[in-house]
Amino acid sequence: MLIVGERINTSRKRVRRAVEARDAEFIQKEAWLQVETGATMVDVNAGTSVKNEVDDLKWLVEVVQEAVDVPLCIDSPNAKAIEEALKLHKNGRPMINSITAEKARMDEIIPLVKENDTLVVALCMGESGPPSSAADRVKNATAMKEGLEAAGVPLDRAYFDPVIFPASTDGSAPMAAVECIRTIMTEFGGAHTTCGLSNVSYGLPKRNHLNRAFLALVLQAGIDGVIIDPTEPDMMSTLLATRVLLGRDEFCMNYITAEREGKL
Amino acid sequence: MLIVGERINTSRKRVRRAVEARDAEFIQKEAWLQVETGATMVDVNAGTSVKNEVDDLKWLVEVVQEAVDVPLCIDSPNAKAIEEALKLHKNGRPMINSITAEKARMDEIIPLVKENDTLVVALCMGESGPPSSAADRVKNATAMKEGLEAAGVPLDRAYFDPVIFPASTDGSAPMAAVECIRTIMTEFGGAHTTCGLSNVSYGLPKRNHLNRAFLALVLQAGIDGVIIDPTEPDMMSTLLATRVLLGRDEFCMNYITAEREGKL
Repeated sequence: MLIVGERINTSRKRVRRAVEARDAEFIQKEAWLQVETGATMVDVNAGTSVKNEVDDLKWLVEVVQEAVDVPLCIDSPNAKAIEEALKLHKNGRPMINSITAEKARMDEIIPLVKENDTLVVALCMGESGPPSSAADRVKNATAMKEGLEAAGVPLDRAYFDPVIFPASTDGSAPMAAVECIRTIMTEFGGAHTTCGLSNVSYGLPKRNHLNRAFLALVLQAGIDGVIIDPTEPDMMSTLLATRVLLGRDEFCMNYITAEREGKL
Repeated sequence: MLIVGERINTSRKRVRRAVEARDAEFIQKEAWLQVETGATMVDVNAGTSVKNEVDDLKWLVEVVQEAVDVPLCIDSPNAKAIEEALKLHKNGRPMINSITAEKARMDEIIPLVKENDTLVVALCMGESGPPSSAADRVKNATAMKEGLEAAGVPLDRAYFDPVIFPASTDGSAPMAAVECIRTIMTEFGGAHTTCGLSNVSYGLPKRNHLNRAFLALVLQAGIDGVIIDPTEPDMMSTLLATRVLLGRDEFCMNYITAEREGKL
């Protein structure tokens, strides 16, 4: 199970300030805290600064790697920034976040996936904008699957992300995403799925209730990668509990061990 | 959505003591608290006292009805106790908890369902003991469906309960129950489903994590009745949140209203 910690993103004001001020200590604490609470990969995103993104992202990669030894998820709309960041990556197999079903985007990013033997988030956005139904999402996923196969990238390098929209703006969106995950896990041999699940609760109060329930639902659909804030209360406990219920934790050993270690 | 409050059960030591001492105030507070936190029906069970069960159950029905005006779920292995309790029932349509697929049990209880026009929990236990797979459960459900139909009881009076076993003793049991719920909600036209979901976490630590995640999973399978402790932290919040995610809360109005009323 891949658990990507999402906190190091300059869309968060405190992270943006820390990046601007080159406050390595703050960033390293964020990285450490996420790994300590369960992240197996750390996302780095400096996308809010178009002008300095390349330098900012390179700096993030370097300072995060000084603090933790998990691989990084290089999160950028900018192929140049991704390429530069990958040159500095040291620990394990990195992930590129992301390609979409847009041809221009695939043409730019898939060669980087191939050359650097990385994982890649395949975000189910299409040429014509955001997907609406589960079928739309699967159609976009299929286009990316074909693009990856044509380039000779094994499908098990891809984590398909159905694109999570807020339940507050479209009540059918969460289940459309869940259905897309289920279809890909059933029909795309070897592929993985992931999602940035906290988007689901955007605009609603007490988001933790929604995030935790949605985590249970996507896990049941077969998701094997999540992009979460592992420091959010009880997210990791919900993940461990759901895996018990799904019969994916033999003798409940991971759950019981986490409890003994005071992590539930 | 039927929400049955499970707290008034003499298998709980404090309830047993209150029943023995005829402490109406304690029982009425338990009833009131459950309705206040979301129960739409209150279960009453005096099954631990074989000798006094009929009197105890009658007393429970009377004192609970003085405190709350929701219907009661009359929970007993004893047909005589159920019959006597039903005579005292005043508010709305009561529920009998339960029949099983055992013929003797159906022969005893189904006439009470029919004569008193009650709802009934149809527990998927078979002649040969507890069910193991989803198919076993559905087979038992089918036998009860046929028994009810033969007696002329409309299927929408029945809440099929897949029987929840602890994940700690059989890792495949929770999902077998979920699959049974999904099958019944898809294939048994008009029937309902329910379950006593906290059994799933029996024997494991931090049961609330497991209960909440399981609630999300059974709701996704289509369950429309739950037997829970509505005072357990965040169970009702999880229920409301999951209904948002399933697209069953238009404009998130129930969720948002609950938050405004301080109930999330």
